[in-house]
Amino acid sequence: MIPYAKRIQEMACAAEVVSGFFKANADPETINFGIGSPAKETLPREQLRQIANELLSDPVTGPRMLSYGAPQGERELREVVAEVLLRPKGVEADPDNIMIVNGGIETMNLLCQLFIEPGDAIIVESPTFVHSVEIFEMFQAKCIPVETDDDGICPDAVEEAIKRYRPKFVYVVPTFHNPSGRTLTLERRKRLAELGSRYDVVILEDDPYRDLRFSGEEIPPIKAFDKTGNTILANSFSKIFSPGARLGYVLATPEIIEKLFDIKVATNSQTNTTLQLICAEYFKRGYFAEHLEKTRALYRSRCQVMMECVDKLFPAGTKRTTPEGGLFVWVTLPEGYDATELLKKAAQHKVSFAAGEGFFVEGGGMGKNCMRLTYGAIPEEKIRIGMERLAALLAEQG
Amino acid sequence: MIPYAKRIQEMACAAEVVSGFFKANADPETINFGIGSPAKETLPREQLRQIANELLSDPVTGPRMLSYGAPQGERELREVVAEVLLRPKGVEADPDNIMIVNGGIETMNLLCQLFIEPGDAIIVESPTFVHSVEIFEMFQAKCIPVETDDDGICPDAVEEAIKRYRPKFVYVVPTFHNPSGRTLTLERRKRLAELGSRYDVVILEDDPYRDLRFSGEEIPPIKAFDKTGNTILANSFSKIFSPGARLGYVLATPEIIEKLFDIKVATNSQTNTTLQLICAEYFKRGYFAEHLEKTRALYRSRCQVMMECVDKLFPAGTKRTTPEGGLFVWVTLPEGYDATELLKKAAQHKVSFAAGEGFFVEGGGMGKNCMRLTYGAIPEEKIRIGMERLAALLAEQG
Repeated sequence: MIPYAKRIQEMACAAEVVSGFFKANADPETINFGIGSPAKETLPREQLRQIANELLSDPVTGPRMLSYGAPQGERELREVVAEVLLRPKGVEADPDNIMIVNGGIETMNLLCQLFIEPGDAIIVESPTFVHSVEIFEMFQAKCIPVETDDDGICPDAVEEAIKRYRPKFVYVVPTFHNPSGRTLTLERRKRLAELGSRYDVVILEDDPYRDLRFSGEEIPPIKAFDKTGNTILANSFSKIFSPGARLGYVLATPEIIEKLFDIKVATNSQTNTTLQLICAEYFKRGYFAEHLEKTRALYRSRCQVMMECVDKLFPAGTKRTTPEGGLFVWVTLPEGYDATELLKKAAQHKVSFAAGEGFFVEGGGMGKNCMRLTYGAIPEEKIRIGMERLAALLAEQG
Repeated sequence: MIPYAKRIQEMACAAEVVSGFFKANADPETINFGIGSPAKETLPREQLRQIANELLSDPVTGPRMLSYGAPQGERELREVVAEVLLRPKGVEADPDNIMIVNGGIETMNLLCQLFIEPGDAIIVESPTFVHSVEIFEMFQAKCIPVETDDDGICPDAVEEAIKRYRPKFVYVVPTFHNPSGRTLTLERRKRLAELGSRYDVVILEDDPYRDLRFSGEEIPPIKAFDKTGNTILANSFSKIFSPGARLGYVLATPEIIEKLFDIKVATNSQTNTTLQLICAEYFKRGYFAEHLEKTRALYRSRCQVMMECVDKLFPAGTKRTTPEGGLFVWVTLPEGYDATELLKKAAQHKVSFAAGEGFFVEGGGMGKNCMRLTYGAIPEEKIRIGMERLAALLAEQG
């Protein structure tokens, strides 16, 4: 038996958490509050069918869709990112400084290849997005948790951790945070951008939920306040177009994009040309605005139902976040409740969620009384049924 | 400036060669013998359009195409691989032991994540496929070149190198080799599988050209002779379906596939669902046989024209391989000719190819008089014009 590389052992803990999400997802009868999927009914299926049909019929675009493309990504889609997705948010970007990747998460992998040596420190939020932790640990980075509150990650604590651990990255999901649903305030965004510049650290801003705002005021990305190129913006088309298309992008300095070119080539050559061109055309035809409006309305009411269920059905003393968008409500049960145990029983009752423990790199049972609940893909009636099932199981634990 | 990881320096040399191919490809007026693209006219554009149209219209399959799928790949496509692509070649495979990846090259990346520590040895052919070398060097492996002849890599030399370097992988492209166009004989295939088992080394069989045979007898993959699971078969849909779709697969033991699940999740979650389902349907409808027949006929005559041009136009004493399929002719110019210099001049004369030097990990100018010429995507008349341009430049060097 040929020995595996050391990194396999180091990623094992986060890998178990993440693969657990996929396994819970496999049973179609389970009401699954565990996976942050977009609502199937919002997927622009009919528009994509029309666009695919038209573009594949075109004697120039058709063959191009099926041929090798550019490792950096197709120009049309990079222009859409710059003009449709970034400029309105206060981020001026040159399409040359954008790379298209195979889904949002690939950016974390490529940036680790570029920057991370075994033992390098990466600052993460506490709690944080465990899927990215799995990547960081595969690259044998040491994840340093930093405290968060209702306004997101605490910049003073970030500065202290930067001085102490000299990390390569500060990894944050600033908008409708995964798993907490919270949003980093404007002041803190400015402060993080400034910390990145002052200490020459990458602020790795992972922002896939930002367009899913259903209440409150829009806040520009951290990248909008970056004056030195230290903030790198990672984003995804999964929540605003289609997760199955596996499209994402990264905005960074020309020097970094040039290096990512080689790394992308040494990962999978390029992202698929076919769906890049279909996606670009979708945005060019202006379908996005209407799509967002529908999606936001749907998520607003589903989130509302879920929050009401937590308030009405869950044990007295339960706390929850109040997201202004995105896909996640974070629930903190009273001390003594064990969400990890709850999850095991839940499977038998055809309901699932993400146990909070997995989102804390601290380990040692931290977050054992926490749950991440998603509502995006689940109709209101099913949310109520699933939450009642969870509440019944919680009543047994209480 | 945040320092890059050491691997970036170690991959720089191969990365320069590979990125050079992409840059030469950028000018549409250049006759490019440098990139192994399939012929655009063989891409099944109309069939894909119809299938996309039908599947996206389907109320069950349509939404599924745009949703998150399985990290291991969609079941339908894994079944196609097992039944349509592997069984007829003498490889019995369970779809559970197959993973779908984002283009053939991604398998090399994922397997390096699983097995390779910095400094580990990987045996490669001399010459070898430089794109894979770029990946191996990104993972800080040490590539050990082993001699090849007209029958492919020499097994005695492989055994000697295994004993001496204790490599993790023996990397081979056995059929219509890239860059040489040669095919590993049946006896040597059996011997390699047996060496993998005896010394507990991965025989990494990269076989993307095998279906493009236009003369001679089919030979089973090395994997067909593997009794211990030491041979891992990597393949791609790029040359037989569409390179733009970025679909490939890997066949390995259940233990390895289970580990690759986590690594795939930590690379880009999954390969796009949309094109996996379209591709599976394409094969299920039986379009493949006719497609192959057309493709083989086209490549047969283009290869013939290219070989005739080498024989007629290139300097006396030039040698070339006689491929029985695939996309590459390997040319060895008489001593004293410099293909690397030739390539620089060729750009000004709107013709390009791959200089042989880049395919030798030995360095030191080895292969300086060699060229890899591809013919697949270039009409006969253009092959003649391009070869005349090269011959004129060679005459200046002579």
